[in-house]
Amino acid sequence: MTDLDFFFNPSSIAVIGASDNVGSVGYEIMKNLTEDFPGELYPINIKKKLIFGKSSYKSILDVPNHVDMAVVAIAAPYVADILEECGKKGVKGVVIVSGGFSEIGEKEREDKLVEISKKYGIRIIGPNCIGIYDNFSGVNTIFLSKDKVSYPQKGNISFLSQSGAFAGLILDWTSKERIGISKVVSYGNKIDVNEADLIDYLYNDETSKVICLYIEGIRRGRRFMESAKKATKRVPILALKSGKTKSGAKAASSHTGSLAGEDKIYESAFKQSHIIRANNFEELFDMAKALEKQVYPTSDGVAILTNAGGLGVMTADALEMNGLRLANLSEYTVNKLKEQFPERVVVSNPMDLVGDADKERYEIGLKALLEDQDVGLIIVILLLQVPTLSLDSADLILDIKRNSNKPILILGAGGEIITPCLRKLEKGGLAIYPSPERAARAAYALINHAIVRGDIHRERKENIGVCKI
Amino acid sequence: MTDLDFFFNPSSIAVIGASDNVGSVGYEIMKNLTEDFPGELYPINIKKKLIFGKSSYKSILDVPNHVDMAVVAIAAPYVADILEECGKKGVKGVVIVSGGFSEIGEKEREDKLVEISKKYGIRIIGPNCIGIYDNFSGVNTIFLSKDKVSYPQKGNISFLSQSGAFAGLILDWTSKERIGISKVVSYGNKIDVNEADLIDYLYNDETSKVICLYIEGIRRGRRFMESAKKATKRVPILALKSGKTKSGAKAASSHTGSLAGEDKIYESAFKQSHIIRANNFEELFDMAKALEKQVYPTSDGVAILTNAGGLGVMTADALEMNGLRLANLSEYTVNKLKEQFPERVVVSNPMDLVGDADKERYEIGLKALLEDQDVGLIIVILLLQVPTLSLDSADLILDIKRNSNKPILILGAGGEIITPCLRKLEKGGLAIYPSPERAARAAYALINHAIVRGDIHRERKENIGVCKI
Repeated sequence: MTDLDFFFNPSSIAVIGASDNVGSVGYEIMKNLTEDFPGELYPINIKKKLIFGKSSYKSILDVPNHVDMAVVAIAAPYVADILEECGKKGVKGVVIVSGGFSEIGEKEREDKLVEISKKYGIRIIGPNCIGIYDNFSGVNTIFLSKDKVSYPQKGNISFLSQSGAFAGLILDWTSKERIGISKVVSYGNKIDVNEADLIDYLYNDETSKVICLYIEGIRRGRRFMESAKKATKRVPILALKSGKTKSGAKAASSHTGSLAGEDKIYESAFKQSHIIRANNFEELFDMAKALEKQVYPTSDGVAILTNAGGLGVMTADALEMNGLRLANLSEYTVNKLKEQFPERVVVSNPMDLVGDADKERYEIGLKALLEDQDVGLIIVILLLQVPTLSLDSADLILDIKRNSNKPILILGAGGEIITPCLRKLEKGGLAIYPSPERAARAAYALINHAIVRGDIHRERKENIGVCKI
Repeated sequence: MTDLDFFFNPSSIAVIGASDNVGSVGYEIMKNLTEDFPGELYPINIKKKLIFGKSSYKSILDVPNHVDMAVVAIAAPYVADILEECGKKGVKGVVIVSGGFSEIGEKEREDKLVEISKKYGIRIIGPNCIGIYDNFSGVNTIFLSKDKVSYPQKGNISFLSQSGAFAGLILDWTSKERIGISKVVSYGNKIDVNEADLIDYLYNDETSKVICLYIEGIRRGRRFMESAKKATKRVPILALKSGKTKSGAKAASSHTGSLAGEDKIYESAFKQSHIIRANNFEELFDMAKALEKQVYPTSDGVAILTNAGGLGVMTADALEMNGLRLANLSEYTVNKLKEQFPERVVVSNPMDLVGDADKERYEIGLKALLEDQDVGLIIVILLLQVPTLSLDSADLILDIKRNSNKPILILGAGGEIITPCLRKLEKGGLAIYPSPERAARAAYALINHAIVRGDIHRERKENIGVCKI
């Protein structure tokens, strides 16, 4: 077991404040864990003897076996005593979901928890959080009912959130967006375990190939930067930081009590630790789902292959706005394509195959671009709505992708008829984007992480993806 | 009939190049018109006598009745002769979908068409376009098969596109996004009818309450600005202009032959004619669907009502980045809310109702904000995933909305379980946004158009919605 692993892979969990009352926090946690967690589960409730058909104990000290981890969902004034008991029991980690601490000014009450945790060497996540969702181990302390929240498919993106509500939203939203999630952690007031600890842990977690952060304010900046800097050499970290403006910073201070601080300081910290910043949460996961594939470009030249000229133009714009450059196709590539394409197809980058392109023309184009040395990454635009491009083009593209080690991003959008074809590409391992700007932003993330990894030898440029228009 | 109305509301249409060959352009146009257009339809084909069960004519001159409008889908070299015949027949408008003119360097061939159109006073849309889709009259010259493209629901947004392929994508995409469309026009090489003519026409069209543009380059700038300036006093115009960067401008010039020109010139032209610029097509329609409701703010103060603090912070950020300001709640509003809310709810803007808010707390909050004089517009954030906020909150919000004349934007996202509730709000007439940034951008559009209309007395600030981070 590595550090913090008892939170994510415990053999046994005690739920302190477990309940049979439908809708209560203690009920939802018990329900989720009963359904998802394969290990031992011990409900703790001072009144009940049986909860969810399991023997319930008055105190965690009454549990006859060892307890790895406890979830605490009781009123704030009683949490300290309970934590003391957890310490005596030898519990390694405690997730305190209860609110009612520093976020409402009860600083002393919170300090008491810190004191007890140090005395016993217990690690704490929270208080005032929704805790942990682990899609692999089944640990789920998120007290949102499955009657209202859908959970996402298994995947390799982990998300750390200072906001509990936002973490809940992301779980539900990623389920709809078919984004694969490994772990979601909401760490609330972070009196002990903070972003840095979690980054250190996820760095060694095989199922976390990308780390996404939602941050309102960071307290121990140096420690955070050290962890991030170490991690990003291998595992990309993406951050959405709010409280950027005066209005936002003011709102953040009354939300999590965070001092958002000068945004420039964060900007510089992110830059130094090679964290890629997202402008919004759609972008955060747009970038994450490209990075999750772990296929990185070795050249910073981007090629665009399209059957829709307008979308090619917009993509070229979006790439340049992200500080990226269009690949210079070699003379060899250009001549080869000129030979094989009809005269009305002007060989260039964006490579516009024009409106009557069929899948054969795509095949020729895609293969040639993949072979071109200056092409590090390809954005393939598929306007599947046109008559000549058959929906089985997906199979062709997946075939070509299997024999290539360059990242391919798909730009495709449309209605009900087109969607199954895009889903097939997605299931085949390609990231799909609905707009030029979102695909370009994913390309930006891939190229930037490749630079940090040393796969591309170029200076990393900070860019926000939108220039003044 | 006003100018150009024969294109959108013709009594009769001739399809020149009509065909029975499945998949051909002439087939798709006939198929779409047969299904959608209730007026007289005359197939013209030099070989066939019967097409789609209708009598077919060798020449439009053989049609025994008057023909209002013709669609031409034959090889480029023959288009001039056909246009001559249309002139003799007294056809008022011709949509030339055929390509093979200036876009491939055949400038003389194109000039010949201009000459003929002037001789007979025929108006031309195209060539090299996909023409017209009118969701009300049933005119549909878009040769994309319904086997691949879904068409959008009826609504009050009209879209003018220099790119045909992009117009097709938007039809299909808006169908999935439940965006209501009145007309889509792809005008291609615009040898006669251009953006300005179409804006003039849509200005007087009762079903077009918002005009969206996709532009690569404009030739007659002054004429365009005059039309836009006149229209925007009443009908908002939104523009997505590509070719903003060097890479994009180069790509545009080989796509539609457009000289994208200095982006600054467009920026200034849009500003002077009160056109609101979009950064991407999602944003274009995000803004359009808010403007379509025709409910405008009379104050530029924005209020945020939320049960998710983090989303409140992000929304505050996004508003400020759009040059918008948070409303200053009056003492009266603040005191009233303090009286009614539990102590842990800090009355402020963003008004964070905190995680355990139920629909009653939303009711109190929303009504108070609607009554506050400085509040011009409200963004209601619904984290429906939490246990206390029931899904029937939609009914409550719709009830309150019916008795108010201030715009309300809903920020809500999630998975399968939440979605029906968001759909209900949408059907009830509210625009729904999946992220803070997209909701804020819609607020920007509403406030900007209200300033142009004179509903808000403030100077209009240009803003792109994203500042340097």
